[in-house]
Amino acid sequence: MTLARHLANRELREDDEHVHAKTPPGRVYRDPAILDKEFETFFFREWLCVGREEDIPEPGDFFTRSLGGESVLVIRGEDGRARAFYNVCRHRGTRIVEEPEGKKLRSVVCKYHAWTYSTEGALVGAPHTDGLADFDRSKMALYPVRLETWNGFLWMNLDEDAPGLEETFGEFFSRFDRFRLDELRLAKRVVYEVDANWKILIENYSECYHCAPIHPDLNRLTHYMSGENDLFMSRGSTRGRTSGGFMVFSGDYTSMVWSGYTGRPPIKGMTEDDKRRVYYYVLFPNMFFSLHPDYLMIHTIYPVSPSHSRIVCDFFFDPEVMARADFDPRDAVELWDLINRQDWHVCELTQKGSSSRIWRGGRYSDEERGLHDFDKYVLERLDEG
Amino acid sequence: MTLARHLANRELREDDEHVHAKTPPGRVYRDPAILDKEFETFFFREWLCVGREEDIPEPGDFFTRSLGGESVLVIRGEDGRARAFYNVCRHRGTRIVEEPEGKKLRSVVCKYHAWTYSTEGALVGAPHTDGLADFDRSKMALYPVRLETWNGFLWMNLDEDAPGLEETFGEFFSRFDRFRLDELRLAKRVVYEVDANWKILIENYSECYHCAPIHPDLNRLTHYMSGENDLFMSRGSTRGRTSGGFMVFSGDYTSMVWSGYTGRPPIKGMTEDDKRRVYYYVLFPNMFFSLHPDYLMIHTIYPVSPSHSRIVCDFFFDPEVMARADFDPRDAVELWDLINRQDWHVCELTQKGSSSRIWRGGRYSDEERGLHDFDKYVLERLDEG
Amino acid sequence: MTLARHLANRELREDDEHVHAKTPPGRVYRDPAILDKEFETFFFREWLCVGREEDIPEPGDFFTRSLGGESVLVIRGEDGRARAFYNVCRHRGTRIVEEPEGKKLRSVVCKYHAWTYSTEGALVGAPHTDGLADFDRSKMALYPVRLETWNGFLWMNLDEDAPGLEETFGEFFSRFDRFRLDELRLAKRVVYEVDANWKILIENYSECYHCAPIHPDLNRLTHYMSGENDLFMSRGSTRGRTSGGFMVFSGDYTSMVWSGYTGRPPIKGMTEDDKRRVYYYVLFPNMFFSLHPDYLMIHTIYPVSPSHSRIVCDFFFDPEVMARADFDPRDAVELWDLINRQDWHVCELTQKGSSSRIWRGGRYSDEERGLHDFDKYVLERLDEG
Repeated sequence: MTLARHLANRELREDDEHVHAKTPPGRVYRDPAILDKEFETFFFREWLCVGREEDIPEPGDFFTRSLGGESVLVIRGEDGRARAFYNVCRHRGTRIVEEPEGKKLRSVVCKYHAWTYSTEGALVGAPHTDGLADFDRSKMALYPVRLETWNGFLWMNLDEDAPGLEETFGEFFSRFDRFRLDELRLAKRVVYEVDANWKILIENYSECYHCAPIHPDLNRLTHYMSGENDLFMSRGSTRGRTSGGFMVFSGDYTSMVWSGYTGRPPIKGMTEDDKRRVYYYVLFPNMFFSLHPDYLMIHTIYPVSPSHSRIVCDFFFDPEVMARADFDPRDAVELWDLINRQDWHVCELTQKGSSSRIWRGGRYSDEERGLHDFDKYVLERLDEG
Repeated sequence: MTLARHLANRELREDDEHVHAKTPPGRVYRDPAILDKEFETFFFREWLCVGREEDIPEPGDFFTRSLGGESVLVIRGEDGRARAFYNVCRHRGTRIVEEPEGKKLRSVVCKYHAWTYSTEGALVGAPHTDGLADFDRSKMALYPVRLETWNGFLWMNLDEDAPGLEETFGEFFSRFDRFRLDELRLAKRVVYEVDANWKILIENYSECYHCAPIHPDLNRLTHYMSGENDLFMSRGSTRGRTSGGFMVFSGDYTSMVWSGYTGRPPIKGMTEDDKRRVYYYVLFPNMFFSLHPDYLMIHTIYPVSPSHSRIVCDFFFDPEVMARADFDPRDAVELWDLINRQDWHVCELTQKGSSSRIWRGGRYSDEERGLHDFDKYVLERLDEG
Repeated sequence: MTLARHLANRELREDDEHVHAKTPPGRVYRDPAILDKEFETFFFREWLCVGREEDIPEPGDFFTRSLGGESVLVIRGEDGRARAFYNVCRHRGTRIVEEPEGKKLRSVVCKYHAWTYSTEGALVGAPHTDGLADFDRSKMALYPVRLETWNGFLWMNLDEDAPGLEETFGEFFSRFDRFRLDELRLAKRVVYEVDANWKILIENYSECYHCAPIHPDLNRLTHYMSGENDLFMSRGSTRGRTSGGFMVFSGDYTSMVWSGYTGRPPIKGMTEDDKRRVYYYVLFPNMFFSLHPDYLMIHTIYPVSPSHSRIVCDFFFDPEVMARADFDPRDAVELWDLINRQDWHVCELTQKGSSSRIWRGGRYSDEERGLHDFDKYVLERLDEG
């Protein structure tokens, strides 16, 4: 019996599918075996946003990211190119870099026996190995991880055989290439620890049915019925790994800030339509892309256990605006911190309640079609995997 | 091979059974698979005492109870009747009520999308569901849990097909109906967290062989050899789910208080025999009923893990006595707090030691016949289940 | 497929084996099933050093040791002989002794029902058992654990059928019998909690390839290339359970102390050769024996989980030296505390990194031959077990 068949309460035809749609059963949010399968099927095979070019501007600059027991080192080489490696020494398997980030490393040295790698990953020092048989230093470089970039964002993929980043997210990228998002700069990072499954977080981001009850501030500025979705994960000739759309400001509000009126100019490239909207997209499986007229908010999601996730929330602004004496991102950051916490709270309640033995799944409302689309995408891929 | 066969060290005949009785092997107190089976066999199928009518006197008053990953909402409806429900929204499975208790709810509203239920559990509000197919609000009430009452106590049962409360505990109830225990009122609640299996706690309550070594105060007031058991779980034409009996005061002591002499009058209905006794009964699987001449003590037991249990200890008195200016329950509460802690300590030591690989079970003394009866009852039902 | 076959990267001949040797794969350091097998194969079947005769000089003196969920009581009987017992009452399986150590017990009394044992383990009191059938007190002594001694050290073995202590470590003992180590006395104990597998700790102790990078103080006093190994676990007609050798002081240094020059005389029995050396041996599976000219350092290792170990580090000196007014062991203790912590740190990094899914084992250098020997010994025994 497949997981996906839980989503229908009768034989479905695509055109009226959502009016029959059911939520998944609780176990997909709490079974450790399902999370293991999700790591193998998604997180170790898909493109994951892990940071920005600007995080490591100079050769030797680096950061590390942890996911599913793995630590990955992202470092810019002497040749100016950013690369990613498993954070594992080829000698004894020792974790090499402990620091979460750092500047201008000349080489990557294992603390245990001083095996030494270049910033491009090559093994350049390994004492007392000259007498070994079949030991070829050129084959003992740090284990590489694929790293590609789009518009300043760094994406890694642990799967050597996965399609490229552009092939994966091309349709989405083409809509936002015009904004030169690579020129934006990080103004604020907030990290959240949330006791909820990663899919509950994506489902929460994917509907605004909850906005009237729990986000009065958001609902005042952008009414929950104002939106329109234009990308769906499970539809089309290729399954797109992207879903979302936009919401529209009420009245003459100009951005998601406490007052509703931003003092910052729009990001370069905004059309009149863009200035009336907030764009919200999920880039499966770990990025929420939220483009506002005057700033970009990015959530990246890291599953820790079936019932716990780490969320990094970053706010990017135009560096020319950031250079102004009166620049203050708090009107946006603090509003979203409130909204984020309201979301994490109901996500945690859903994690708790849906683990009940009585719970076999419920019924989605008219305003949750995107969630059924997401559930189908995830459960069908798990069933295939 | 059955679990119960561990309890005999040779072929048993009922009449001399206890002189051959062995304790269960250690794994029944530590194996998570056995606790899972105990939840399915006992805690999700038997009547569990969860509180009192007086805890929720008015319509909309409520409390929640947690057991085995489940949260149950107990709430008095507008119609005056107390009911129990799984604490789970029918929409997305969200935990609805977070508060452990509260007063005068007008309706039960899920915090996520504001689906709204009456205090009787009916779904009365679910926005944006009019267009759904096969969606009948009258079939989307909160999942009900059976709730019955005896003498002011509220009992829940997650099993729709279990025999009723009266059928289950009738023989025990008939002995104590005359006391109007429903009129008593709670004076003090103490909650204990104990690192011991729930069965070790029942075994501890079921013998006074340990009273001389560890409870000098108890043994002074009621000698450990003074008791007599008159109900046994595994005997009789029906297996009774109740065991226990009474102990007798030494000398002219009148209650279990520090001095041995209570200044409070006996509970209404006490005979001369009753006034010389403390009654101690286990109502399987989660209630210890301890009736003293002037007060009633109730322990309720909630298994948390194979090696951890939560115990709620409540003290009830006659409200007329409680209304007196000089009413002070501490002479009873503090004595029992000492005795309780002495018990939890040896229970924790037994949990630790019986997990040794060398431990294959020991031998019960003459003073532990009730434990063999309890062990047989539990292990035979697990073997059947 | 065996575990041991991971250690070779081609068909091996013993004479050139180490130049082809590979490290074990990461899972042998993190799989709970492998630790369970290691407990059954090694820790519950081998001789484990647990303390010293001097720890319990008088009848009734005792200490307890915990390992793999077991608690063992080591107590000196009224007859003057030290014995070990499972810390479990024969009545109900209760943990009897809670205290980590104590003096002059007259008898061992279970706190629950006061069953009483002599200091030699015999059951001497068990109330209300006279009526029991087939109950023979003489057969209800505390469960014994084998205990043997060498040179003041107490060793326990949970396996009734294991070869004796002398048979196990005789070759090693014969080399150090001349020192009267039984006369030394404990001056300092340091206990460490380390997030690394027990085998990573033994591997760390078994090579000095890491000494130049991480132990500059040690490497200054005894150069990492100065050593020579003369016992190997997996070689010889009998597999020896012992490995190690010695290192030689640089220049005219006389001991491992901050300055390199000790003010203490050598331990009695030291030859001129001995005075130039530090001896380092692993006594499998839980003791590191490090004999310096003027003191003896003993590490005992207790696995707690696949990724956590407890290490007890003891320093012993000549009691005549300890009696001097100016005796101060800190020059040795503090130096080794620094070195120990440097080691635990890289062991923890190796635990972390080697759990990566990419890690399939690396290549040992010329200076790590003892580790390949140890790995072969452990993995071949696990494969046999």
